[in-house]
Amino acid sequence: MSKKYVYSFGGGTADGDATMKDTLGGKGVGLAEMSKAGVPVPPGFTISTEVCNIYFQNGNKVPADIDQQMDEAIAKLEAQMGQKLGDANDPLLVSVRSGAKFSMPGMMNTILNLGMNDKSVQGLIKRSGGNARFAYDCYRRFIQMFGEVALDIDMEHFDHIFDEQKKKAKVKLDTDLTAEDLQKIIVEYKKLVKKETKKDFPQDPRAQLKMSRDAVFRSWWNPKASYYRKMERIPDSIGTAANVQAMVFGNMGDDCGTGVGFTRDPGSGEKVFYGEFLINAQGEDVVAGIRTPRPISELHDEMPEVYKQLVEITSNLERHYQDMQDFEFTVEKNKLYMLQTRNGKRTGPAAVRVAVEMVKEGLITKDQAVMRVAPSQLDQLLHPVFDAASLKTLPKLLTGIAASPGAAVGKVAFSAESAVELCKGAPVILVRKETTPDDIHGMDVSRGILTAIGGKSSHAAVVARGMGRPCIVGASAMSIDERAGKATVKSGDKTVTFKEGDWLSIDGTTGHVYLGQAQTNDPDPSSGVLATFMGWADEYRGKFGVRANADIPRDAKVARKFGAEGIGLCRTEHMFFAEDRLPHVQAMILARDEKTRRQALAKLLPMQRKDFAGLFTAMNGFPVVIRTLDPPLHEFLPKREDLMVDLAKLPHADTKEKKAMSEKYGFPVGQLKKELPVLLHRVEELHEFNPMLGHRGCRLGITYPEITEMQARAVFEAAVQVAKKGVNVIPEVMIPLVGSWKELEHQKNIVEGVAKEVLAKAGITLKYMIGTMIEIPRAAVTAAKIAEQAEFFSFGTNDLTQTTMGLSRDDYTKFSGHYQDIKVFPADPFAELDQEGVGELVKWAIARGRETRPELEVGICGEHGGDPSSVKFCYDAGMDYVSCSPYRVPIARLAAAQAALAKSSAGAEAGRTV
Amino acid sequence: MSKKYVYSFGGGTADGDATMKDTLGGKGVGLAEMSKAGVPVPPGFTISTEVCNIYFQNGNKVPADIDQQMDEAIAKLEAQMGQKLGDANDPLLVSVRSGAKFSMPGMMNTILNLGMNDKSVQGLIKRSGGNARFAYDCYRRFIQMFGEVALDIDMEHFDHIFDEQKKKAKVKLDTDLTAEDLQKIIVEYKKLVKKETKKDFPQDPRAQLKMSRDAVFRSWWNPKASYYRKMERIPDSIGTAANVQAMVFGNMGDDCGTGVGFTRDPGSGEKVFYGEFLINAQGEDVVAGIRTPRPISELHDEMPEVYKQLVEITSNLERHYQDMQDFEFTVEKNKLYMLQTRNGKRTGPAAVRVAVEMVKEGLITKDQAVMRVAPSQLDQLLHPVFDAASLKTLPKLLTGIAASPGAAVGKVAFSAESAVELCKGAPVILVRKETTPDDIHGMDVSRGILTAIGGKSSHAAVVARGMGRPCIVGASAMSIDERAGKATVKSGDKTVTFKEGDWLSIDGTTGHVYLGQAQTNDPDPSSGVLATFMGWADEYRGKFGVRANADIPRDAKVARKFGAEGIGLCRTEHMFFAEDRLPHVQAMILARDEKTRRQALAKLLPMQRKDFAGLFTAMNGFPVVIRTLDPPLHEFLPKREDLMVDLAKLPHADTKEKKAMSEKYGFPVGQLKKELPVLLHRVEELHEFNPMLGHRGCRLGITYPEITEMQARAVFEAAVQVAKKGVNVIPEVMIPLVGSWKELEHQKNIVEGVAKEVLAKAGITLKYMIGTMIEIPRAAVTAAKIAEQAEFFSFGTNDLTQTTMGLSRDDYTKFSGHYQDIKVFPADPFAELDQEGVGELVKWAIARGRETRPELEVGICGEHGGDPSSVKFCYDAGMDYVSCSPYRVPIARLAAAQAALAKSSAGAEAGRTV
Repeated sequence: MSKKYVYSFGGGTADGDATMKDTLGGKGVGLAEMSKAGVPVPPGFTISTEVCNIYFQNGNKVPADIDQQMDEAIAKLEAQMGQKLGDANDPLLVSVRSGAKFSMPGMMNTILNLGMNDKSVQGLIKRSGGNARFAYDCYRRFIQMFGEVALDIDMEHFDHIFDEQKKKAKVKLDTDLTAEDLQKIIVEYKKLVKKETKKDFPQDPRAQLKMSRDAVFRSWWNPKASYYRKMERIPDSIGTAANVQAMVFGNMGDDCGTGVGFTRDPGSGEKVFYGEFLINAQGEDVVAGIRTPRPISELHDEMPEVYKQLVEITSNLERHYQDMQDFEFTVEKNKLYMLQTRNGKRTGPAAVRVAVEMVKEGLITKDQAVMRVAPSQLDQLLHPVFDAASLKTLPKLLTGIAASPGAAVGKVAFSAESAVELCKGAPVILVRKETTPDDIHGMDVSRGILTAIGGKSSHAAVVARGMGRPCIVGASAMSIDERAGKATVKSGDKTVTFKEGDWLSIDGTTGHVYLGQAQTNDPDPSSGVLATFMGWADEYRGKFGVRANADIPRDAKVARKFGAEGIGLCRTEHMFFAEDRLPHVQAMILARDEKTRRQALAKLLPMQRKDFAGLFTAMNGFPVVIRTLDPPLHEFLPKREDLMVDLAKLPHADTKEKKAMSEKYGFPVGQLKKELPVLLHRVEELHEFNPMLGHRGCRLGITYPEITEMQARAVFEAAVQVAKKGVNVIPEVMIPLVGSWKELEHQKNIVEGVAKEVLAKAGITLKYMIGTMIEIPRAAVTAAKIAEQAEFFSFGTNDLTQTTMGLSRDDYTKFSGHYQDIKVFPADPFAELDQEGVGELVKWAIARGRETRPELEVGICGEHGGDPSSVKFCYDAGMDYVSCSPYRVPIARLAAAQAALAKSSAGAEAGRTV
Repeated sequence: MSKKYVYSFGGGTADGDATMKDTLGGKGVGLAEMSKAGVPVPPGFTISTEVCNIYFQNGNKVPADIDQQMDEAIAKLEAQMGQKLGDANDPLLVSVRSGAKFSMPGMMNTILNLGMNDKSVQGLIKRSGGNARFAYDCYRRFIQMFGEVALDIDMEHFDHIFDEQKKKAKVKLDTDLTAEDLQKIIVEYKKLVKKETKKDFPQDPRAQLKMSRDAVFRSWWNPKASYYRKMERIPDSIGTAANVQAMVFGNMGDDCGTGVGFTRDPGSGEKVFYGEFLINAQGEDVVAGIRTPRPISELHDEMPEVYKQLVEITSNLERHYQDMQDFEFTVEKNKLYMLQTRNGKRTGPAAVRVAVEMVKEGLITKDQAVMRVAPSQLDQLLHPVFDAASLKTLPKLLTGIAASPGAAVGKVAFSAESAVELCKGAPVILVRKETTPDDIHGMDVSRGILTAIGGKSSHAAVVARGMGRPCIVGASAMSIDERAGKATVKSGDKTVTFKEGDWLSIDGTTGHVYLGQAQTNDPDPSSGVLATFMGWADEYRGKFGVRANADIPRDAKVARKFGAEGIGLCRTEHMFFAEDRLPHVQAMILARDEKTRRQALAKLLPMQRKDFAGLFTAMNGFPVVIRTLDPPLHEFLPKREDLMVDLAKLPHADTKEKKAMSEKYGFPVGQLKKELPVLLHRVEELHEFNPMLGHRGCRLGITYPEITEMQARAVFEAAVQVAKKGVNVIPEVMIPLVGSWKELEHQKNIVEGVAKEVLAKAGITLKYMIGTMIEIPRAAVTAAKIAEQAEFFSFGTNDLTQTTMGLSRDDYTKFSGHYQDIKVFPADPFAELDQEGVGELVKWAIARGRETRPELEVGICGEHGGDPSSVKFCYDAGMDYVSCSPYRVPIARLAAAQAALAKSSAGAEAGRTV
């Protein structure tokens, strides 16, 4: 016997079953399953994905024995329907649709009304009770669709004929064309086919069917299908099935109709029968928007029996699939046909609500519920969102790259300074060409950030996500004239200008920017179904911790609200950019000797102490990981190029320009000539070819031990201060950029010395730890030795990715497009941890570190700590916790719960096979 | 019985033997061995290193039972010498000297004439035949030395007393002081001791001995000793022995004398009895330079018997130690004493000659000879060297960091452009603040390079070593005014100025720079003893290859002369900086579309083809590894800051300035205003935050496949061209900066496509390989997958070190001092491969790569390929070859031979233990 390629379904039975998704595709399996469950689907058969693959491998030829199998399936189908292909009395018409293993909605081609020819059109007139217009319309639609999809004839040619006929008939609407008009169109369509293909339009339905099948296969490589697969990471190799199914018509009269629906509201998740329908219409009319569909509740009055049956069937389907269903149906002469059902797509809020309510209904278990929501969907629940109605009233300005989700409304500021100024009176949106660490104080006071250049990993994007601020980057249509205080946006011929102080509404979830003030709604993570849902997730997550990256007490409080169990990374340098501190930081950097440096550090000590005290208080009872100074010092000084250019301009500068320079650099106008070269000289000394690989991290603390000393003092004095007030303080001091155990030993000695002194003086004992970031490959490679010094490891996977890949994330954006095209990496390695490369080093380091120190605490504090697939990796790699930005904490909690569930079910699987 | 701490020697016997270097130190073992061999050494005893270590561990206290052991040894010594400590007739005097396992010449303290006191000074007068002046001089010398070393009294105080007495006695020379004068000095010396220590000068010789022993131990921690250990990497923990030895006097009359010598000439290696002596003198007189020593041949006439005995003894010693000896001797009353013998230090040329001649003499075997020369010593044989006499006639200008060895003489050029100009008439020395890739053409035409800033890993140093050009960097005393065409050197109050065109002689081996024209001598690697020696080395090296990094045919020829078996790295971009090519390269970069880019590339194709043809011809029969374009494109464009500053200056620039800009950027004066902003814009687009981690390496070839295509075409068209002329061509095309197998696959497809096309067209088959550099950690981690695509790996350990350590070698110099102080890394990781970190990744990658492809060819082409310890690592790691700069090829050949010998002897050891 030859291999089975064709699988029939319908009439309460089917050749295939639910396990055969690889072979039958998603739609094929659904049809088989529905048939078996007694759901009234129009019968038909599925041509397997294998045929598609053979077709491409064989130079666009299907296997030899396929025709016979199809003939057998057609015979069966004709028997079931009591109709015959091409019949002049009651012709069988079929649709041919694609259907891959994974849903690719609208990406491939479909052919409807197959079987129409000069003879069967007469049969269809009879079947429709003499509706000649309907029958000819079906025929002309089929020729058009078939011509376009199977014969590669340009759609425009058909449209042209159609429009010409409308002109001749002097009608405006398609529906005003008569049967005679349509017949004339059919004649012209056939001529067109003959002209374009040098062959007559095929009258034989079986020939039509073979050509349509092949055309559906070929549409696997439609550009939009390829692109969609790339985007959704669907392998090219799996191919699509082709589903041939009897046509039923919702447009044969008022006892016919069609509709779509959901078993629950896909927007809110509420349990209501949800959908729309049209009487005497075809499926495409519902979505086409020519006629306004009616709410499905009204079907109850129109067709009470059909309505009852529909509710019953879809409820059963929901129970059967244990998930909310998205279905399509058609009623032909009062008989209900289900055309499709599938698990419905839904918004984040709906996903959570459906999951929680289904547990309460006893439909699914709690662990199923936890697995049911994609962690990334939570994002929608965690940021302010625009009120949709309010948004519609505003003009859309442009669309950039959505870099940090959420909605923000504020007045435009074109510089950090004016943001600080403007924010006293109103919320602010910071609009910059790009942001740098200098802008931190401006970003900090802004509700949202919009930049003209940069990608999802740009400074603006990373910092904004860390702050939980909505952010849009790479809005390249916008060009900013900071000096003139305005920006222009070009779109086609139109140019829109907006000024400093204008209202802007930006949606970091979609990348859309609107002129004007939209309304927003706030999230509430700690009550309602989300709280219930997260509670369940936490049950499964168990001991695996989720901490937050937070630098200031305000962020720490938000983090706690979102369920963070500690701070995994406090970047002490972010405190250095504050307006009242920067001058002391600069004084420290410009100091020529240790004494002067210590004087500047003494000024910073009380400020840092206060920050740390705030963090400890907010995190009462939870650990706080504080990283010592990390960035290269020149980041705190004016830019080298700015200085060079200003110095070149100085001799010819006018009073206004000089005043601007004076403000910028903090020297009186009269001293610019003397001081600028001195400042430039120091900046030149600090200039680095590759700052990422330069004098930063623990390298600073080793050359200037007094900086580490001051920071350790601030940490432990703050700890003592709040501990005395009854706060449970757990400081973990973290040394960055360690590459050798000797570096860590050096810094650890300083921190430990200060800790002992401060604690002894206060007469307090306190549990604290000293550990290190693992963020350069050498640290990972020599982890065994480093763990002798470190009580904890925290993987800084941002830098570890950069160094392991030899790839600067700032510079990567310039060629990342090419890299995505040839799929060098499965995903953006700065968004999803590169498990094959970086991940190997991480696993190696954990194993070696724990060999030396079994109780070693291990976490991650890079951006990846908030990415679901990376969280799963961290869980599987045996880390103790992940740390991410406060707003991503629930996402990480859910991802961790899912990782735990996946592992325990994998364990159970493994157990079963033993 | 208590532990043995004291080991006697002398009189044809000794307690210790040659195996006890850990316990007795180098000197102690030498004395024991000489005694046993019947060499007439003054007898004595060695206090073991263990005592020193216990001394420090016990808070500066020796073990309790040491005194008794010393008393026994003294008794034995007194018996042997027939003298007694402190005796009033014939007193035993001894010296106390340090002696660690490894030679630390002059770093620790010595005490001579111990045993002198008020009584024994009378005895010494008698022993010396009534020479009171001699005896009192011994006494005063002892007080001074003991006071300084054992009692910590400032030397100046003694000098002051001594000088005062000379004034009182109205004499100029020390030797003019009478016995009476010396007695007065002794009285004052004793007063000084009493004043400074509150105790009398100790008269008891045994007390003197204990204090001196402890003082010698303490000198282990002299700052200079600590520093020397750090430099030579001698562990702090091994401690020193103390050697107590009977004093003999060469200054007791004309039947006495002293001298030093070598069994061969340590400068040339010639087998001549080599040394100097003085009659009636102490050892220090020979080196102090007060009296001019006489050539040792004259000793034959003065003391024929002694001379004969000395020649015989030292010849025996050379045979015994199987190496050239460096010895000291004293004659007391016609009796010869050997004070010391050790393997003599020698120059590189001498090391080679001695090794070769000793094999011919049957003294050592060939493998011993190969192990006898430190690879780094060969350096002295491979570069032109200054004629010493000629050098003495020139004023020394300054000393910088010796970065690339050899001597160079030329006229000063302060820019690459003027170097190109000047070199037409005379040899040139390029003098720059620092060099950048822009200067390559200038460096290329210069005989030597001198820079004011930068370390041994700076651009200038690396490139110069690659070119084999002498180079001195970090000459910070020099400040250059390029515009004025002059440089000034400050040293103390003096300021010396030199101008463009002045003659300079620079010695890259020592770092010395001289004003004027010195004579140089050229090396000849292919004849004489060096050729013999290298031939032997190659026998042991076996199949392990040594290739050279060479970019142009001229360097390739040099490489062959030095024994390179192929080119391990041709950096195609170095060809891009040539004056006739740079405009086309810039046109390629500035191209806005592929077509324009291809036009520019078409211009470069014939040039590259010609270069490759030259390389292939020079390497007839040997492989040539050609790397595709590697550096970021902005390196080929003007500097961003220059453009910004010039643009700022332009509005107020005068005609001269504008003309300068016009020449610099290649635009007519009138178009500067229009073109500069355009150029800046493009430069801005190409600007990178971390160029090292940016758009370079294969990333260029992926975004601009046409570049790889052009280079592949140049390679294979050149190969076909010369193959047709009968040259045996073996091209190996190397893709740089690969991090994922997909990148390599992409580039490989391009190269392979071109290769097949070109070869098919020519109708030729040719063996060629396509492989990759392993220079970022991800490549090492995923080596198994990469090896599926790569036919060879070449470790680019420069970049691999930078990325693995997260450390830019350009920026490291800013804090490397601190890092050396706390010994973060055992050596400069850019000079010696970091085996603990980078080395682990290298070993991992080789193992994984060969798992996938057992026949994978593996080499190294980073700077480390020419470093002996790194070559040994590469050999042990199982690489197939190393590649280094042409001038280091013999060094690598020798290092590889030594690695092979070490491995086979380790194997033999292991074999024995089975």
